[in-house]
Amino acid sequence: MIEYYDVSGCYILRPWSYAIWEVLKDFFDAEIKKLGIQNSYFPLFVSEQALTKEKDHIEGFAPEVAWVTKSGNTELEVPIAIRPTSETVMYPVFAKWIRGHRDLPLRLNQWCNVVRWEFKHPTPFIRSREFLWQEGHTAFATKEEADEEVKIVLELYRKIYEEYLAVPVVKGIKSEVEKFAGGLYTTTVEAFIPNTGRGIQGATSHCLGQNFSKMFEIFFEDDKGERSLVWQNSWAFTTRVIGVMVMIHGDDKGLVLPPKVATVQVVIIPVPYKNVDFNQMLDACNEVSQKLESAGLRVKQDTRDNYPPGWKYSDWELKGVPLRIEIGPKDIENKQVRMVRRDNFEKEDVPLEKVAQRAADLLDEIQANLFKKAKEVRDLCIKKVFTWEDFIEALNDKKMVLAPWCDDVEVEEDVKARTKGDTGAAKTLCMPFEQPDLPDGTVCFASGKPAKRWALWGRSY
Amino acid sequence: MIEYYDVSGCYILRPWSYAIWEVLKDFFDAEIKKLGIQNSYFPLFVSEQALTKEKDHIEGFAPEVAWVTKSGNTELEVPIAIRPTSETVMYPVFAKWIRGHRDLPLRLNQWCNVVRWEFKHPTPFIRSREFLWQEGHTAFATKEEADEEVKIVLELYRKIYEEYLAVPVVKGIKSEVEKFAGGLYTTTVEAFIPNTGRGIQGATSHCLGQNFSKMFEIFFEDDKGERSLVWQNSWAFTTRVIGVMVMIHGDDKGLVLPPKVATVQVVIIPVPYKNVDFNQMLDACNEVSQKLESAGLRVKQDTRDNYPPGWKYSDWELKGVPLRIEIGPKDIENKQVRMVRRDNFEKEDVPLEKVAQRAADLLDEIQANLFKKAKEVRDLCIKKVFTWEDFIEALNDKKMVLAPWCDDVEVEEDVKARTKGDTGAAKTLCMPFEQPDLPDGTVCFASGKPAKRWALWGRSY
Repeated sequence: MIEYYDVSGCYILRPWSYAIWEVLKDFFDAEIKKLGIQNSYFPLFVSEQALTKEKDHIEGFAPEVAWVTKSGNTELEVPIAIRPTSETVMYPVFAKWIRGHRDLPLRLNQWCNVVRWEFKHPTPFIRSREFLWQEGHTAFATKEEADEEVKIVLELYRKIYEEYLAVPVVKGIKSEVEKFAGGLYTTTVEAFIPNTGRGIQGATSHCLGQNFSKMFEIFFEDDKGERSLVWQNSWAFTTRVIGVMVMIHGDDKGLVLPPKVATVQVVIIPVPYKNVDFNQMLDACNEVSQKLESAGLRVKQDTRDNYPPGWKYSDWELKGVPLRIEIGPKDIENKQVRMVRRDNFEKEDVPLEKVAQRAADLLDEIQANLFKKAKEVRDLCIKKVFTWEDFIEALNDKKMVLAPWCDDVEVEEDVKARTKGDTGAAKTLCMPFEQPDLPDGTVCFASGKPAKRWALWGRSY
Repeated sequence: MIEYYDVSGCYILRPWSYAIWEVLKDFFDAEIKKLGIQNSYFPLFVSEQALTKEKDHIEGFAPEVAWVTKSGNTELEVPIAIRPTSETVMYPVFAKWIRGHRDLPLRLNQWCNVVRWEFKHPTPFIRSREFLWQEGHTAFATKEEADEEVKIVLELYRKIYEEYLAVPVVKGIKSEVEKFAGGLYTTTVEAFIPNTGRGIQGATSHCLGQNFSKMFEIFFEDDKGERSLVWQNSWAFTTRVIGVMVMIHGDDKGLVLPPKVATVQVVIIPVPYKNVDFNQMLDACNEVSQKLESAGLRVKQDTRDNYPPGWKYSDWELKGVPLRIEIGPKDIENKQVRMVRRDNFEKEDVPLEKVAQRAADLLDEIQANLFKKAKEVRDLCIKKVFTWEDFIEALNDKKMVLAPWCDDVEVEEDVKARTKGDTGAAKTLCMPFEQPDLPDGTVCFASGKPAKRWALWGRSY
């Protein structure tokens, strides 16, 4: 999936993982175009003046900003920043482009790289100093329109995780502490990695309110000639999604790729025996391959003659190909193939005339099964508690904790301080949109003050 | 198309131009995938050690390299370069991945941004400090395979220019002076801008030979166990292509977009008169729009009620939309529409039941006509000469000059020196693949030595 690189915190996305990114990109790009959002491209570089315009925003990003100070052997007159995100790149131009209500909504997206020189331990996909993402930046006349878009985009992110990557997520809103620096509110899809007992932010859709439009002076004149600030959103998902998928579906034999994103959905492996004409085997493989390709499946034949079949099985299991087809002399004789699922290793013999339909059905089943299994495991990792003691116990048991909360910034900071340890402090992952009942009189698990809502807490990436 | 930006030499690609990039990307990406080339993503950053490994290569790029020296307020231990191109990013990894002949060919591509901190006057699309491109990097066991790919990719670049952007190009090979720094030979498609009398390098497909593989120690073991260096290519086209198109097809009313790349191929404009029900007009526009969309055309209705039709005509002419459809009350009465071509302003009335077919045909005609016109103009700009005097005269007449040449590096440097002036020196654009006859005894126009072949010379961008 990745290759290591000699600049720390940077990784190479090999074709095997990049192709997953392409599937997700194609899906998301088509969806946002249907919504009327247009692609564009803004520069990699930001002037210091623009970058530092919004105070909260730059406070959030400043320590991680990479600065270019030299070209060739020449010192630049002023250092130039590399975008950690493009609010400050785009919004000065929004102010120029938006004049009247007819210029709204302005809805742009770009697919690009961004750089955040993180000091936490870099991890492939999950935390890298350069990563790929899309970032949507939109401006509306009204808060209602902005709110509506925030939700629609978040639903697309849920689909990416649940319907493509087979990773269950919780939709919710971030706490004041955890929201996007400079924004009004942040919605999120949160995943959970059972092995490590950590939550992970999946993708976020922010309503920026009028905060950036105030700083960047993005006004519009409405049809009555009144001047108002625009309402803005920004939203993004990154190559991190691939890392989350890897961590959720991997097993001790290697990767397990959900069929919808797998570059190769079916691998065909000839199983020759002595005295069998290898060319006859290859013909049989070709025939099956053509049937599957005609049905729109992504197929690969592994006809390498320098490896035994068993070695190839392991190799493709390691790479996570969802379905394997084995063709041996007996199969040819019986006009059938053997299909082996990567998710549960179930085997079945399928008559030749049914291979395409059965393979397609099995891929659907594998996709559904991966999600179902992941969701069962994830659901077992959500622990509902009412008290501090139970909270700590669940946390130490590597669970996500759903607890009634007073929603005070100080209390979140306090919980962080009290849970700080070698494995990192607990924080709110989100306040789920789907809230359990909160009986009258319920108190906050941490402060004892009246609880306002349920929050999902956990250690996180 | 673009918007200016507060970091010098960087420009914003607005949706109107970015969509052209997307059309070209979709075409090229599908073609290279058919060839078995895979997409991947390598880091933006290069260590100094890797960057400086190939001497000629770094000499070519060193003055233009941007260096990151700081993150947040912290000085980096070693400065890190931003890729001006990715040979030095990718090839250390090629050395790791390639072991035996079964690992070959290795054929990768990436779509990304690169940075060249140019000191020449920056020009939107044509010379910007950051630009978007694809870069293909491939490795083969034999020179024959590498040679073959160089040609195939160059033909794709010709298609981008001639079949998509309607820009005629000359295919050829670069001189030793002009070839890619560190490569074996460079093939190119060269365009020409009549207004300015300058040639412009359209896109290049390089055979790197074994030079980089030697420096980066990229060996493979053949089936006899012998160790050899791989043969490598690299090839790229950039957002420059859009700039070339703009310069070729623009007229005094603005842009002219070739239909195959136009975001909006047909704009529909209602032409209301007093006493006419505007809603009835809108219904008519909708009906036509649906017919065109069903035929797969990219259509936009301009139903803004705050601009008169004439203003809208100019506005869409400025933006370069290839075909305009006007619908007035009389058209509705006669069940027809008026179509107006952007390329030659020819008008015709088309019965309603034929709009989709006629619009599609007209778009094809416009595409063909734009290319034909551009080629006629370009062909008139190629002047064949045999003597230095004629060479200088043609050059001053803003022509490309086809001249018999001895193909000596010193002579090219000498021609450069002798033609240096306010408007830049003349240089070889390429040695065209299609060579006119070179009679025995023909001498070089510049040196008087025996001519080896015809070279195309000119001032250039």
